[in-house]
Amino acid sequence: MSTIFISVHTQVAIIMGSDSDWRIMRQAFEVLESFEISCHKQVLSAHRTPEDLSLFAKACEAAKVKVIIAGAGGAAHLPGMMAAFTIIPVIGVPINTTSLQGLDALYSVVQMPKGIPVATVAIDQATNAGILATQILASFDEELKEKILAYRHKMKQESREKTKNLI
Amino acid sequence: MSTIFISVHTQVAIIMGSDSDWRIMRQAFEVLESFEISCHKQVLSAHRTPEDLSLFAKACEAAKVKVIIAGAGGAAHLPGMMAAFTIIPVIGVPINTTSLQGLDALYSVVQMPKGIPVATVAIDQATNAGILATQILASFDEELKEKILAYRHKMKQESREKTKNLI
Amino acid sequence: MSTIFISVHTQVAIIMGSDSDWRIMRQAFEVLESFEISCHKQVLSAHRTPEDLSLFAKACEAAKVKVIIAGAGGAAHLPGMMAAFTIIPVIGVPINTTSLQGLDALYSVVQMPKGIPVATVAIDQATNAGILATQILASFDEELKEKILAYRHKMKQESREKTKNLI
Amino acid sequence: MSTIFISVHTQVAIIMGSDSDWRIMRQAFEVLESFEISCHKQVLSAHRTPEDLSLFAKACEAAKVKVIIAGAGGAAHLPGMMAAFTIIPVIGVPINTTSLQGLDALYSVVQMPKGIPVATVAIDQATNAGILATQILASFDEELKEKILAYRHKMKQESREKTKNLI
Amino acid sequence: MSTIFISVHTQVAIIMGSDSDWRIMRQAFEVLESFEISCHKQVLSAHRTPEDLSLFAKACEAAKVKVIIAGAGGAAHLPGMMAAFTIIPVIGVPINTTSLQGLDALYSVVQMPKGIPVATVAIDQATNAGILATQILASFDEELKEKILAYRHKMKQESREKTKNLI
Amino acid sequence: MSTIFISVHTQVAIIMGSDSDWRIMRQAFEVLESFEISCHKQVLSAHRTPEDLSLFAKACEAAKVKVIIAGAGGAAHLPGMMAAFTIIPVIGVPINTTSLQGLDALYSVVQMPKGIPVATVAIDQATNAGILATQILASFDEELKEKILAYRHKMKQESREKTKNLI
Amino acid sequence: MSTIFISVHTQVAIIMGSDSDWRIMRQAFEVLESFEISCHKQVLSAHRTPEDLSLFAKACEAAKVKVIIAGAGGAAHLPGMMAAFTIIPVIGVPINTTSLQGLDALYSVVQMPKGIPVATVAIDQATNAGILATQILASFDEELKEKILAYRHKMKQESREKTKNLI
Amino acid sequence: MSTIFISVHTQVAIIMGSDSDWRIMRQAFEVLESFEISCHKQVLSAHRTPEDLSLFAKACEAAKVKVIIAGAGGAAHLPGMMAAFTIIPVIGVPINTTSLQGLDALYSVVQMPKGIPVATVAIDQATNAGILATQILASFDEELKEKILAYRHKMKQESREKTKNLI
Repeated sequence: MSTIFISVHTQVAIIMGSDSDWRIMRQAFEVLESFEISCHKQVLSAHRTPEDLSLFAKACEAAKVKVIIAGAGGAAHLPGMMAAFTIIPVIGVPINTTSLQGLDALYSVVQMPKGIPVATVAIDQATNAGILATQILASFDEELKEKILAYRHKMKQESREKTKNLI
Repeated sequence: MSTIFISVHTQVAIIMGSDSDWRIMRQAFEVLESFEISCHKQVLSAHRTPEDLSLFAKACEAAKVKVIIAGAGGAAHLPGMMAAFTIIPVIGVPINTTSLQGLDALYSVVQMPKGIPVATVAIDQATNAGILATQILASFDEELKEKILAYRHKMKQESREKTKNLI
Repeated sequence: MSTIFISVHTQVAIIMGSDSDWRIMRQAFEVLESFEISCHKQVLSAHRTPEDLSLFAKACEAAKVKVIIAGAGGAAHLPGMMAAFTIIPVIGVPINTTSLQGLDALYSVVQMPKGIPVATVAIDQATNAGILATQILASFDEELKEKILAYRHKMKQESREKTKNLI
Repeated sequence: MSTIFISVHTQVAIIMGSDSDWRIMRQAFEVLESFEISCHKQVLSAHRTPEDLSLFAKACEAAKVKVIIAGAGGAAHLPGMMAAFTIIPVIGVPINTTSLQGLDALYSVVQMPKGIPVATVAIDQATNAGILATQILASFDEELKEKILAYRHKMKQESREKTKNLI
Repeated sequence: MSTIFISVHTQVAIIMGSDSDWRIMRQAFEVLESFEISCHKQVLSAHRTPEDLSLFAKACEAAKVKVIIAGAGGAAHLPGMMAAFTIIPVIGVPINTTSLQGLDALYSVVQMPKGIPVATVAIDQATNAGILATQILASFDEELKEKILAYRHKMKQESREKTKNLI
Repeated sequence: MSTIFISVHTQVAIIMGSDSDWRIMRQAFEVLESFEISCHKQVLSAHRTPEDLSLFAKACEAAKVKVIIAGAGGAAHLPGMMAAFTIIPVIGVPINTTSLQGLDALYSVVQMPKGIPVATVAIDQATNAGILATQILASFDEELKEKILAYRHKMKQESREKTKNLI
Repeated sequence: MSTIFISVHTQVAIIMGSDSDWRIMRQAFEVLESFEISCHKQVLSAHRTPEDLSLFAKACEAAKVKVIIAGAGGAAHLPGMMAAFTIIPVIGVPINTTSLQGLDALYSVVQMPKGIPVATVAIDQATNAGILATQILASFDEELKEKILAYRHKMKQESREKTKNLI
Repeated sequence: MSTIFISVHTQVAIIMGSDSDWRIMRQAFEVLESFEISCHKQVLSAHRTPEDLSLFAKACEAAKVKVIIAGAGGAAHLPGMMAAFTIIPVIGVPINTTSLQGLDALYSVVQMPKGIPVATVAIDQATNAGILATQILASFDEELKEKILAYRHKMKQESREKTKNLI
């Protein structure tokens, strides 16, 4: 990778092992976009482009990225390796890509050893990765906090309306 | 629970379902203490004191707590329910307390539905919950960032020294 | 939730985390209806409307509801949390909604800690939740007991007829 | 089994596949005793004494037993078979007796087919089986309801006291 | 079940919990038929017609049935309960009928306690149940032994021909 | 293996992958001995002495062995490979020898492909392998049938006595 | 099997239990072909043609085959048994052919006992078996090493291009 | 890591995530030593010293190392990441270090994506990793081939002697 350019206003970086993971990971992107959080997205493979991990980590640090979201399936090393290369908090999304139905990815992403955590969300739950990133940013941003509270409120109202569909 | 008092300088709250979980959760406490992060610790049971969850959430919000760490075993509802009651990011620690060896807790903590994420770490890995909380704070605190980088550096040096023990 | 109204003649309340669970939970409803048991049905999300759990529990108690049936998938906290908020017996239905095929829900629903039981039935077996509720009511109602015995008898006869289909 | 005698005042019957299961099942007995619920206990093996199941079911029905608690490990057919022989509600306790750590028993007890439910509690959680039986009885007994509320209140108070043990 | 009639020349009885299991269990029937082994087939539910188990066992014993093949899914108690009611060897076929993909049935069928074995074959492998029954009979029947050896020989030849399909 | 000698009166052969499996497999031997069934026991490793499998199969056939019992742990190929080399019925005992607690052995022993069945019993349940072999022999031996019925009767009586131990 | 002929220039032999496994195993063949590695392919069943294993092993040794790739599903004994019959390194491919989704095959292939290893790759990942075989050959062949480096380089470039598909 | 020195005669490199893994990995070392294969051993953590992976890979390539053996527990990224950084064949040893009993490590090590294989052996089976490395070398070294054949022969003889221990 000759150069990696990450805009200085980027708050969250979304990475995934392959473009085939985008069907899941775009959910995270859409959540962040809906909260007007600036966001960088990139295919970055722990196994096919391992040398790029360190470069990407440095680019994120230079751009003062606050949170990294990493999705991967199968052996799913990307979230853990990105966490090894940086101290920016990494949210891991295990993706269901093999006959083991995401269990292999879940174990690989969550069972990190002492010292290098990955904040793991549910299998294929990239939406929640986006929301978790937003909540982390909101802990330090009152305006964003209001937006999430509004999002929660809307979710609550919609949930309360659903009883009428039980017919 | 008549009143819950959380000091206004508290940055991280650590909660657990029972005092028997303290053998694991104290690891998170010790990490945070080592980074001089102010921290509140409390037994709070989703099942035995469900009414207290909402009160605790409000107390955390009033004190501007930045991150909540919640540990639980078995059905392990505490992290997810705390996440339901607040938008402060919740880190969940699945604890191995039943014959299913933490797998029940892992599934309960990580498989949260769309909208309410829990940042899950490895089974019994409360140390990593403490480090993850620290990394989140450090994303917004340059001084703390230096401390974690030093911690990582030390870990790296120690790791490199270990080859000589292979005898 | 401004008000929850549950009719005083209600014997069983059926709750579920989302209206998408109705495809499963309606089986419980239909069983209860077939036994002419009065029954309240409602969407109630442990994660999206956590404040409503306590209100709903109180409404059930006020209406002297005898049994609550709660269905949920994934982290599936609804049955356990409802059990935490009331001493009315709660029957839990783990629903298959994720790639883990209901195993996550099963563990979350059944592995409740000491003190707060949930009466768990098979994954997606809302029919059995309805029958179990009926059997509980029948333990205290001779007329209903006769109806279930008739139901069992019919099931028995139908089963005995099935050998002729082995062609 | 020449005769099975169950006292007419018996409200709950506790059965188990072997006397070696008593280390777990006595927890249910002790809970019921503490609530002054009259209770019959018996070893009854689905595999070694299958003819006794039907006799026992009839004796329970004659004595107007309200709830049956059945514990078993491994293939764990006892709860399901007792449920097949009676319409008295059966609470099943999967017991951890094999190298599969109770998972075999859990699946056998909970995955009952349409028509014949077993109210399953957590692996080895006979205490909860006792509490669930008590809650079922209490749904039809105001005095018992008060006792359980007191039990819950005590549990709540004890839980709230436990924060001081986090040292 | 008023009467169960099993012809005295019957060598193998095939039972299953429901006629929906016939899609799998007919494989056993076809194998036995191909070896000209006389065979009785019947729907017999451990849960819906538990009283019939003992009658069926006695009818098998009266007819001097040599082997019983029992298929069931989910909690899958039929093979184990039939084994409890007779000393005729029981071959169990776990059937994949729930979201747990036959794992629940496998554990229920195979994990039988000391004293009451079930000869378990692979999930959905009713063909092998038929072959195993044939092999058992052949251990005491030289003519049948020749037939199986011929079957094996044919299988071997067919297998050896398959390399040419690798194109 | 220059020569394998199996006595012509041998009815059952017990084989195992290693002498360390004898702690489990001797249970089968003791059962058979108690029924006065002549029995050959041997260490035979599918992986360390694969050439001996065919020789052993032939020796069993020459001696007119009626049933082979094979125990193995881990990848546990012995039962399936012995079944491939002979049409004598093979009973497989999965042994718990690895960190997967017998699950690896269970899957390897039971999940045999179409054509080559193994009659699998529970993990570590060599006693049941011995009883199953006895039941198979008894299907063709009235005297042995009486002995097993007596064994079952004794088991039944002992089970019925156990209620008095619930103190 | 009267004769097995393997050309003396063969470097890798690919075997599988059935021609139905070819849909997976052809991936290995295509990888090897793309690297111009001479390769023999054959159906060889551990269970249907067990006598052929030893002959095939000897033919491979006579032809100085360097690596054997063996694919199998279910009980999946082929890789382990081939490893038992030869010291040529065996790469095992667990194939997803049963309701257990390849987990049975994975355990059977990978959990080999001390002394007889199988180099296991991911479930259904025959491509990686081909690449692993190539890497083994390349460790002793500078020209082939260049080819794999080129393959890796191409993979890397393609991966880096994929970010532009995230739309 | 300022410099990594690997002797040019080194044929196999053994790496592990921590010196606590040495209790397992020394088995590989001892096997290789017994075959007089020159061997380098080193602690190298994918998570604590990620920058060293690339350096180590280059040092191995410079020294013309033929095989790398990598052991790791939990998320167990070391074998897969080393495989990503080099085309030298990597043998992975999943180590049982968490409450999931090596299953997390097994999935992480074996479920590698297309393009980057890891040759996985059984959980905790470092002995087999050593033997597999030896077999790979022996495919290109007639003298070593003789040694392994002798090792196999000895294993065979010992196995054949073990029947006499069945007492």
